[in-house]
Amino acid sequence: MNNPSHKRSSGLRGHIAGQTSISTVGVRGSGLSYRGYDVIDLAHKSTFEEVAYLLLYGKLPNATELRAYLQTLKGMRQLPPELKQALETIPANTHPMDVLRTGCSLLGNLERETHFDQQLEKANRMLAIFPSIINYWYHFSHHQKRIQENSTEATIGGYFLELLHRQKPSVLHRQVMNVSLILYAEHEFNASTFAARVCASTLSDIHSAITAAIGTLRGPLHGGANEAASELISQWKTPEEAETALMEMLERKELIMGFGHAVYTDADPRNVVIQQWAKHLSEAGAAPELYAIAERVDEVMKREKNLFPNVDFYHAPVYQYMNIPRSLFTPLFVCSRVTGWCAHIFEQRSNNRIIRPKAAYVGPSLQKVLPLAERI
Amino acid sequence: MNNPSHKRSSGLRGHIAGQTSISTVGVRGSGLSYRGYDVIDLAHKSTFEEVAYLLLYGKLPNATELRAYLQTLKGMRQLPPELKQALETIPANTHPMDVLRTGCSLLGNLERETHFDQQLEKANRMLAIFPSIINYWYHFSHHQKRIQENSTEATIGGYFLELLHRQKPSVLHRQVMNVSLILYAEHEFNASTFAARVCASTLSDIHSAITAAIGTLRGPLHGGANEAASELISQWKTPEEAETALMEMLERKELIMGFGHAVYTDADPRNVVIQQWAKHLSEAGAAPELYAIAERVDEVMKREKNLFPNVDFYHAPVYQYMNIPRSLFTPLFVCSRVTGWCAHIFEQRSNNRIIRPKAAYVGPSLQKVLPLAERI
Repeated sequence: MNNPSHKRSSGLRGHIAGQTSISTVGVRGSGLSYRGYDVIDLAHKSTFEEVAYLLLYGKLPNATELRAYLQTLKGMRQLPPELKQALETIPANTHPMDVLRTGCSLLGNLERETHFDQQLEKANRMLAIFPSIINYWYHFSHHQKRIQENSTEATIGGYFLELLHRQKPSVLHRQVMNVSLILYAEHEFNASTFAARVCASTLSDIHSAITAAIGTLRGPLHGGANEAASELISQWKTPEEAETALMEMLERKELIMGFGHAVYTDADPRNVVIQQWAKHLSEAGAAPELYAIAERVDEVMKREKNLFPNVDFYHAPVYQYMNIPRSLFTPLFVCSRVTGWCAHIFEQRSNNRIIRPKAAYVGPSLQKVLPLAERI
Repeated sequence: MNNPSHKRSSGLRGHIAGQTSISTVGVRGSGLSYRGYDVIDLAHKSTFEEVAYLLLYGKLPNATELRAYLQTLKGMRQLPPELKQALETIPANTHPMDVLRTGCSLLGNLERETHFDQQLEKANRMLAIFPSIINYWYHFSHHQKRIQENSTEATIGGYFLELLHRQKPSVLHRQVMNVSLILYAEHEFNASTFAARVCASTLSDIHSAITAAIGTLRGPLHGGANEAASELISQWKTPEEAETALMEMLERKELIMGFGHAVYTDADPRNVVIQQWAKHLSEAGAAPELYAIAERVDEVMKREKNLFPNVDFYHAPVYQYMNIPRSLFTPLFVCSRVTGWCAHIFEQRSNNRIIRPKAAYVGPSLQKVLPLAERI
């Protein structure tokens, strides 16, 4: 049992809050697996839609199932007119994560889950429509432009990029998006997933649980790390300048985002993959110094702090190379993680008990309510 | 430490997930205290606004502070036009809890918390505006009527009733609302509060955390109990009919909502208070049989199952006597509990560590990704 005398917030670190058959984080040699498949193996051999299917349906699809699944998702991208109308009222300076939180909640008003046997359909609908929500609001609020949701792009990553840039993405960018979405899809009982499970444990609907997860991922200690890493590396022009400035930051004990991890102790297994793609993008296009700066920061953090980059760090140059606005980094994370969240909601529902811990009381002892006139 | 071999969801029952100085549930003789004040004492001697102040500011207000606080809240009831516009798009058959979830999220888009030093102001704004959100949507979607938010009602309970019924509430109904809101204000680490704390632990904004809490409270295992109790007692015309039917339900092992509790083992301390008011309302007006039926159900549950009514059970006749539509019971609960939720968010922020437990893995062992063509 927990120790009730601990004086600091423990954040339930190391405590087992339930069972899962969805993923393992840091307990196998490989570091991260989705339903028994190593994430590196998946990143090399599969597409994000296969991974989404794996998480939501419990198995990798065969060719027929995958073809049908891609068609299903493609047919679910259209925004209801009421949702467009509401998105148009949200100002341009709103954080896109807050827009997605509202968009998801309103979708649940317009297309409510009235029975749990609709959960897969609702999950697929969110997976398909989230890129539409983000990009519709983004273009309307920033450029007063009402974009169309039709696209011939077969994949979610390609669709996102086409909506954002209003042009077909390159083959390379499609590939990179695919890998990025695979790496972000699932990560056991992280805070946003746990929030979704707490919500689902009251037998609430799937939109409530995903809305809770979006709001939780939004926090700078969780989903915001890739944005912070991007801000960090973008302020310098050369690796040398980066090293000098970073050393000063470390001297001032400033927090450097994108390094270390709450669960992994030696390395984030996802980093190798995304770092390779960052390098590849830097060689393929403009601004090679961005990658060089990121690499230098990585080296300095290793040398000075013995810290390793997590999945978020090299995502910063990767997304920048694809001209994704920084404020859309975390919403893009949602477009992937919604699969893991939904899988956890299904799992919670399949063996449910309401998640209701208790607290250690450290407040004032019992006292009488004084009449209003006697209070100071 | 927890036992990783347990096979059922534990729901963290009995596990200490952190510290609190806000309330105690079931650990003192009195059963429930807010910041050291017995809830029964508060229900007898104070108003809901005093309790809200106690929870949010940490002390009971003196006369000057209370006067100013009432003015502050009264000045925060107006809906932004964009919020009205969005509420008008939400269909009448939506669950009002889902409307409130979206309304709260959208409020956070329009009036975002950009720094934690705004937290008290944002909390008060939500406390003041939630009755406006619920009732604006309710009247527009059900009666195509755009209501005004102006009212001379000084209290939140009175304001809610006036918006709902479009007429001044009676003194008795104002009193009952006051007590009801006090009883529902705070309850330690229940599921919705815990969801709010998980969300806040990533240092996300207050609207994200409250949106998560609303979605969590919405679940039938949590906030929906008073609605279920109302459905239960409303199907019968006499206590005798109720007893006969209830005995049959118990025979069929049907779940009877509004009885027992996850934390209290002997009695829910709030029940005595709300039951008295239910009795009082039954004597003061029409439909005395409603209370008589509730009382009979209570007796049978005691006799047959040794179960006690929780705070939700007698809230059913209480709200029915005040002509509150059943679907608004849980949103009304939110209008009160938002105070406790916000207090917990403040507390989480003041001593934060991200809430990130781990899971016991029970899934498939490691396997290779087969090429698409080889999968079955």
